[in-house]
Amino acid sequence: MSVTAAQGFLAAGIAAGIKANGNPDLALVVNSGPRLAAAGVFTSNRVKAAPVVWSEQVVKGGRVSAVILNSGGANACTGPLGFQDTHATAEKVADVLDGHSAGEVAVASTGLIGVRLPMDKLLPGVEKAAAELTGHGGEKAAIAIKTTDSVHKTAQVAKDGWTVGGMAKGAGMLAPGLATMLAVLTTDADVPAEQLDAALRAATRTTFDRVDSDGCTSTNDTVLLLASGASGVVPEAAAFVEAVREVCGDLARQLIGDAEGASKDIRIDVINAATEDEAVEVGRSIARNNLLKCALHGEDPNWGRVLSAIGTTSATFDPDRLNVAINDVWVCKNGSVGEDRELVDMRYREVRITADLAAGTESAVIWSNDLTADYVHENSAYSS
Amino acid sequence: MSVTAAQGFLAAGIAAGIKANGNPDLALVVNSGPRLAAAGVFTSNRVKAAPVVWSEQVVKGGRVSAVILNSGGANACTGPLGFQDTHATAEKVADVLDGHSAGEVAVASTGLIGVRLPMDKLLPGVEKAAAELTGHGGEKAAIAIKTTDSVHKTAQVAKDGWTVGGMAKGAGMLAPGLATMLAVLTTDADVPAEQLDAALRAATRTTFDRVDSDGCTSTNDTVLLLASGASGVVPEAAAFVEAVREVCGDLARQLIGDAEGASKDIRIDVINAATEDEAVEVGRSIARNNLLKCALHGEDPNWGRVLSAIGTTSATFDPDRLNVAINDVWVCKNGSVGEDRELVDMRYREVRITADLAAGTESAVIWSNDLTADYVHENSAYSS
Repeated sequence: MSVTAAQGFLAAGIAAGIKANGNPDLALVVNSGPRLAAAGVFTSNRVKAAPVVWSEQVVKGGRVSAVILNSGGANACTGPLGFQDTHATAEKVADVLDGHSAGEVAVASTGLIGVRLPMDKLLPGVEKAAAELTGHGGEKAAIAIKTTDSVHKTAQVAKDGWTVGGMAKGAGMLAPGLATMLAVLTTDADVPAEQLDAALRAATRTTFDRVDSDGCTSTNDTVLLLASGASGVVPEAAAFVEAVREVCGDLARQLIGDAEGASKDIRIDVINAATEDEAVEVGRSIARNNLLKCALHGEDPNWGRVLSAIGTTSATFDPDRLNVAINDVWVCKNGSVGEDRELVDMRYREVRITADLAAGTESAVIWSNDLTADYVHENSAYSS
Repeated sequence: MSVTAAQGFLAAGIAAGIKANGNPDLALVVNSGPRLAAAGVFTSNRVKAAPVVWSEQVVKGGRVSAVILNSGGANACTGPLGFQDTHATAEKVADVLDGHSAGEVAVASTGLIGVRLPMDKLLPGVEKAAAELTGHGGEKAAIAIKTTDSVHKTAQVAKDGWTVGGMAKGAGMLAPGLATMLAVLTTDADVPAEQLDAALRAATRTTFDRVDSDGCTSTNDTVLLLASGASGVVPEAAAFVEAVREVCGDLARQLIGDAEGASKDIRIDVINAATEDEAVEVGRSIARNNLLKCALHGEDPNWGRVLSAIGTTSATFDPDRLNVAINDVWVCKNGSVGEDRELVDMRYREVRITADLAAGTESAVIWSNDLTADYVHENSAYSS
């Protein structure tokens, strides 16, 4: 399943020794064709890891024959030598796989920023991974890219004669400006690179892009979509976009569900906004309000903190016409006290906030998490 | 001391019963002249509490004869009835003080958003406070405006024949867009309203405005500056601005030092920026990065998280020329690994981050705090 759910793909996940604890840390995904079409979206962070700089160039050519992904080190802020390490990794993959060129090998890394990768372990790991490539290696590949993830994340949808599958990792530093963390999607549909690119951008814009667990944007975010054409089916464009969006949405929801230390998954529906951009701006402001995130952790339907978050945006609204529901109880009406807050049932993991801007007809959904002592512990007790 | 350090001011702080626990919750500051000049700066949050809307109008007239401040309730998001409560409070103050007009009485409130004030307790409290006004009541007034503050905050500077003093409250929701929380400054210098306004804006711009404890902007932020002229001294304009800035800076530093649940006070120096605005943007981005705030709580000099925060801004910089010092150890040089991070001594409460953008000659200092389990507890265990 995962990246090997679609025909025409091989994958492997192994322990190369990059992680000190001996857990799997190196994944290889190979497109065996007949087509090698690909597209990618990357972090909006201007401090980009070496593998992001490399893979952005690779994807520009519209062809990717293989993706090599490591956990245990981000290879970010490592200077020219770090970039050479990424280049050497792609060369090694091309060497061990017959008929591949380094310029068509994408590289992705995740882990601690500011530390060089142990190339003496990584390069032999590439040989080991290549030796273990199989048509059902998707699960192992998904496991090998985990960092603080408690579970591995995979998804797939089967359509009429073709399939889209994928894997993702991510449990913190989750506030993508374009994509999020590492994800590889594969399809056996016969789709050219330009159409893959359009589909991937459309899908990530309303899925990975609207996940905001902790307001922190990674240096390494990478989402790749590879098409093998092995099914021989040329899908209808809209159906293909919808399938890619479905897999991205499934994986994005899994990221939120596994966020570091979180006890609540928060769905924020901003409705009746003047524009979709304004709905997203308001949703992100609510998602990033630490005081609200603490209140929701304490199962306190503190709508005043929702209003104070909306008030810091530049979106169109009249403070006296704002309405806010928490779990469908309209606790704030016309900017003031609404239904009894005691009616809000906060016992479940999923919390739904609806912010009605009363300013138009556009809307957006942002997903976030609460702020907990466990999040503080996970991110203060050791470097990550 | 506090607001009664300058001549010409009376103050009182009493328990009106607004707070359930019986602690002091109502402060009154009266300017006995001969002048009644005043200026004010208020929250940039577009969701403004009723007392902010009221006091903005009062201050536009350039005259304030009295300020009434309550803790125990923000009177924010309370609709037209909440505004009537503020109006009634000002009328009550004008009634009990001979020769005052409600249009010259400023009102400030702080506490839980979305709850009406208990006017049956507040209005009798105004009479009680008026009866206790004295020329040394500044300390009691400072105590009465506390909410989650662990200590009351006062400051004063004495110049050649004139004085500026003040009080402030604030321990959370600290990310002023213009001012922060509640603060009242008084002076016996003879300064007209326009000059007070210029001095207050200049002073708050680099003090209260650059405090960013938790990224959350209040609905109630109010800073007032009242001049009695009682000293008869007309100070030189620059010296007056400097004195106001000194008092604001002192109070702002006290806010950070008492932030909810914090174990570290973080001073962020952004240097060599292209513009001062860009320096502030970068400083705020660093101040608001939850992962960095957790790392500093854990005494981990995690400079990668500083770079990832800088990378999300639109400031002018080249990622390969960024330098970062933590407690004066340059752990990141030219965007990559610098001096040994083991050299950084993180044992003390104050942590200093220096971010060198290598893009110009401008700079700014932002103050923040770490993110702790105690912050989560204080803001999740009960509504505030």
